[in-house]
Amino acid sequence: MNGWNGKILEIDLTAHTTKSYPLDMEIAHQFIGGRGLGARLLWDLVGPEVDPLSPQNVLIFTNGPLTGTGYQTSNRFSVTTKSPLTGTVLDANSGGFWGMQFKKTGYDAMIVRGRSEKPVWIEIKNGAITFHDASELWGMRVFALTEKLGQDNNRRNVLCIGPAGENLSRIAAIMNDRERALARGGPGAVMGSKNLKAIVVEGKERPEIEDKERFKFLLYETRKLLAASPLTSQALPEFGTVVLMNIMNNIGALATRNHQQTQFEGAEAISGEELTEKYLVKNASCWACPIGCTRVSKTEKVEGEGPEFESTWAFGAQCGVDDLPAIIEVNALCNDLGLDTISAGSTIACAMELSEKGYMDSDLRFGRADLLARSVEEIAYRRDLGAELADGSLRLATKYGHPELSMTAKGMEMPAYDPRGLQGQGLLYATSNRGGCHMRGNMIGLEVLGLPKLIDRFQVQGKSSFVILNQNSNAAIDSLVVCKFTNMGVADEYFARVLSAVTGFHYATGDMIKAGERVWNLERLYNNREGFTSNDDTLPPRLLNEAPADGPSKGWVSHLEPMLKEYYRSRGWDEHGVPRPQKLQELGLSNLVQAVA
Amino acid sequence: MNGWNGKILEIDLTAHTTKSYPLDMEIAHQFIGGRGLGARLLWDLVGPEVDPLSPQNVLIFTNGPLTGTGYQTSNRFSVTTKSPLTGTVLDANSGGFWGMQFKKTGYDAMIVRGRSEKPVWIEIKNGAITFHDASELWGMRVFALTEKLGQDNNRRNVLCIGPAGENLSRIAAIMNDRERALARGGPGAVMGSKNLKAIVVEGKERPEIEDKERFKFLLYETRKLLAASPLTSQALPEFGTVVLMNIMNNIGALATRNHQQTQFEGAEAISGEELTEKYLVKNASCWACPIGCTRVSKTEKVEGEGPEFESTWAFGAQCGVDDLPAIIEVNALCNDLGLDTISAGSTIACAMELSEKGYMDSDLRFGRADLLARSVEEIAYRRDLGAELADGSLRLATKYGHPELSMTAKGMEMPAYDPRGLQGQGLLYATSNRGGCHMRGNMIGLEVLGLPKLIDRFQVQGKSSFVILNQNSNAAIDSLVVCKFTNMGVADEYFARVLSAVTGFHYATGDMIKAGERVWNLERLYNNREGFTSNDDTLPPRLLNEAPADGPSKGWVSHLEPMLKEYYRSRGWDEHGVPRPQKLQELGLSNLVQAVA
Repeated sequence: MNGWNGKILEIDLTAHTTKSYPLDMEIAHQFIGGRGLGARLLWDLVGPEVDPLSPQNVLIFTNGPLTGTGYQTSNRFSVTTKSPLTGTVLDANSGGFWGMQFKKTGYDAMIVRGRSEKPVWIEIKNGAITFHDASELWGMRVFALTEKLGQDNNRRNVLCIGPAGENLSRIAAIMNDRERALARGGPGAVMGSKNLKAIVVEGKERPEIEDKERFKFLLYETRKLLAASPLTSQALPEFGTVVLMNIMNNIGALATRNHQQTQFEGAEAISGEELTEKYLVKNASCWACPIGCTRVSKTEKVEGEGPEFESTWAFGAQCGVDDLPAIIEVNALCNDLGLDTISAGSTIACAMELSEKGYMDSDLRFGRADLLARSVEEIAYRRDLGAELADGSLRLATKYGHPELSMTAKGMEMPAYDPRGLQGQGLLYATSNRGGCHMRGNMIGLEVLGLPKLIDRFQVQGKSSFVILNQNSNAAIDSLVVCKFTNMGVADEYFARVLSAVTGFHYATGDMIKAGERVWNLERLYNNREGFTSNDDTLPPRLLNEAPADGPSKGWVSHLEPMLKEYYRSRGWDEHGVPRPQKLQELGLSNLVQAVA
Repeated sequence: MNGWNGKILEIDLTAHTTKSYPLDMEIAHQFIGGRGLGARLLWDLVGPEVDPLSPQNVLIFTNGPLTGTGYQTSNRFSVTTKSPLTGTVLDANSGGFWGMQFKKTGYDAMIVRGRSEKPVWIEIKNGAITFHDASELWGMRVFALTEKLGQDNNRRNVLCIGPAGENLSRIAAIMNDRERALARGGPGAVMGSKNLKAIVVEGKERPEIEDKERFKFLLYETRKLLAASPLTSQALPEFGTVVLMNIMNNIGALATRNHQQTQFEGAEAISGEELTEKYLVKNASCWACPIGCTRVSKTEKVEGEGPEFESTWAFGAQCGVDDLPAIIEVNALCNDLGLDTISAGSTIACAMELSEKGYMDSDLRFGRADLLARSVEEIAYRRDLGAELADGSLRLATKYGHPELSMTAKGMEMPAYDPRGLQGQGLLYATSNRGGCHMRGNMIGLEVLGLPKLIDRFQVQGKSSFVILNQNSNAAIDSLVVCKFTNMGVADEYFARVLSAVTGFHYATGDMIKAGERVWNLERLYNNREGFTSNDDTLPPRLLNEAPADGPSKGWVSHLEPMLKEYYRSRGWDEHGVPRPQKLQELGLSNLVQAVA
């Protein structure tokens, strides 16, 4: 059986010991890898009694059966943990080169548990696992650290945290390949809580392919498909993800000034077109990726990867800032400090509104581009105002008596797309099991771009089916792991064929999507076990009650309630959002719940 | 303004006169062309007082703004009329070369009304319109007639009826390009009722393109997309549509023996693989089509185009026949006589069941391949048993006291896909406004092939949204007009860009799909005005009550009722299936209904 290495590595940081044991192949077939495998392992390892920042929490790094095979965009890997930001199951995934190197170490998953007494970094190189003292590295920023530890490998095998993670900011990211991030939900804080500064990997175990000839043919076909799709062959390479700025603004669904408006008068100034014209140096790409959506941009002060659309929006429209160089610079600073740009930007925006309304005493105001870098520095070091912002907007706004001003779902800051102009996106945020997130079944393709089909963005009735479809499909893709952008040119059906060719285990498209549904339901079971209920499947009151006064979404609020009811029914869950026994049986998850009961 | 010719031709067969008047450009923008324009014209021209076979009914031939432009598959055209089979609005469309020639005559639509006293054929050539006496052609079969009238043009500009249309069979097709058909719902009978034998077109007015450079680029991109898609570059050219035979049989959704079973033990013998291996001469294609799904096949007795999947199924699995040469031959015979293969095959299957059960006295039995050709001949000439079969299975089964044995929706025979194994497909048949038809939003992509995404074929809740999505999209595509197979490799978004480039009138994807929704609702209004109600949105009792005893769809019936309720709500219709005023206003259709009220 190829595709999987068949081994799990467990690292105990408390004892500085490691062990390796076989991957349960039944679990592998059922949950595939990546996010799915991570969720399944977390289910057994971390129960509701565990505080996310305690030694009992774990970090589970996983790759998938496609990772490192050379299939287009097969560079991604995941981390799974209990989120210190939301308390939910959390996984985040990232591209670059690290995941491919990780796969070549010969493990499918690496479970990191316990807490090292002193700062440590781990080296996994050609079969040997070494704990290194990191006392002198503690405090280093990401770029310098990557430079130092990654010299042998062109900086492409270092995964680490920056000061934000060390200081347990609940919006801290884990960084890899210098500027790539396992960003959302605070995994950097979990790594910091374990006194683990970095993991450097290098391996020589090249993944084997079961049906080489078929795989080669599928590689060829996928190359053709990606070259044929206007999105993957033109829009993304040419403009990057920021191409969405003008599009979202034009339809009145660009959250602005902490979601007080849905259009930003400065959108053009921070658009992908503007970025390309004035600041783009070149584009870059992850390992084995022919798309190359990564921007390399440059201002007078910085040069580096980014910014992505979400980062540009978070520090831009959401903070009322139209100063693109300032945004590029604060984005680079977040990378260097190891911070999630969406949560950092939106938390600053929340502080701006709290301050403008007089609930909080600070100089933060919408439009103050000059304060962005300072705020981000303060967050990473929990200094001054940063001490209050470091744990995200919900804790901040709650402290000041106005939790309703935190633009979060389940405590995680939402991205740019305002759900009042995109009804399905609102349902997505509310039901996303890691909180306000667009990577769990983004509805932009269906509700805005017409990919693969356009549906009415204001439609409520029937919307849940599309959200579920995207959620299941994305859960499968996150378990392979490949990049979701590939899916813009290549149908799911194709991934199932590649998965079958690589593993020799036959997956019809339906089997693969069913695995995605299984993952989604398991994640739901996890959150339910943590005490989450249907009451948590909600949105900030602003989005439910305050309609935009003008623009194309004028008069619309998010009609969450009917969508949510329909969603539960369509999911085969009861009216409290609990998967029904029949659904669990269908997905082969009954035994997990019975073990609990 | 390009794309549209801007002119409508009206031919009065009673008076043998013609007139031409301008196309209302507001209507053109709202309904695009093809099926949409046809429906809009029919709304004004043919009310509920008109019998479909009376001179007051009209045949409206339409092309669309893309027809004849050279855009991939821009060869199609439509005919719209009130159906003599169902009494509903009917449009049928066809490919080949005729549509492109029709566009070049300089008209967007040709309305044929009245009844000629004597048989007549019409020639439209380089601006001149001539009525020719067809007394000597009356009675001729399609192949010979096409040969005779089409000599100058390699048989590629003749549209005509065969004996079936002359004899007013309610399942008679209009044929063009010798072997292509405007097949369903009996348009051939309407043409026969007007004593119109043929229309020969030839034109020199080459369609102009508004933005030539953009159009050229889109042509190039579409070529790349079609070459990249495995379906349009491989499956369809290599195996044709019959590739579906084994696929549908394997999942237990291949209607067999008048829908008594959902799997056919002889499927392999009549499969696309078998056809390709033993009978395929070559493949062929319509004008401007790089796909080439057309089969040219050969037996000891015949050589010609076809058979398609549906024809092979109708005379094969539906009649319990596994004799592929016999099927190829009866398919060719239907083309020559001018008959709809689906309705002909399924009507014979109905007679087989009636006879086997002793309700009807005939020698027809399932599996009797030797009786197929005889039956089809008899239908076309209303001879012997054919006199009873010529008006379709519902009239036949009703006559013998067992209407429940007619496998029809709104009186039109359903195609191969058994709705018990494909819940969405059942809803599609029940709501299709021309009756049991798969060309109004086929769910096979979503429920079977995973294109663009796989959804659970047994799922009921939420299914209506997908059906609506497909219906609206297909209504738009039928109005452009391009071939739906193109849509397997090219997203809707693309068609909107092509439409904009050709016409210079900007259509966002949403505008184009909205036009499709407008067409769908107008067609619904038409049927409602004819007296159709929600009671007609149903399926044969067999599909609602009798579950297959074995196979992958074992135990399943069509759960139509909950899907239908949800469908009405999602459509913005009331519980009786009547579009609500708000929906009509949104679509700009209010004025039509008010004019009636």
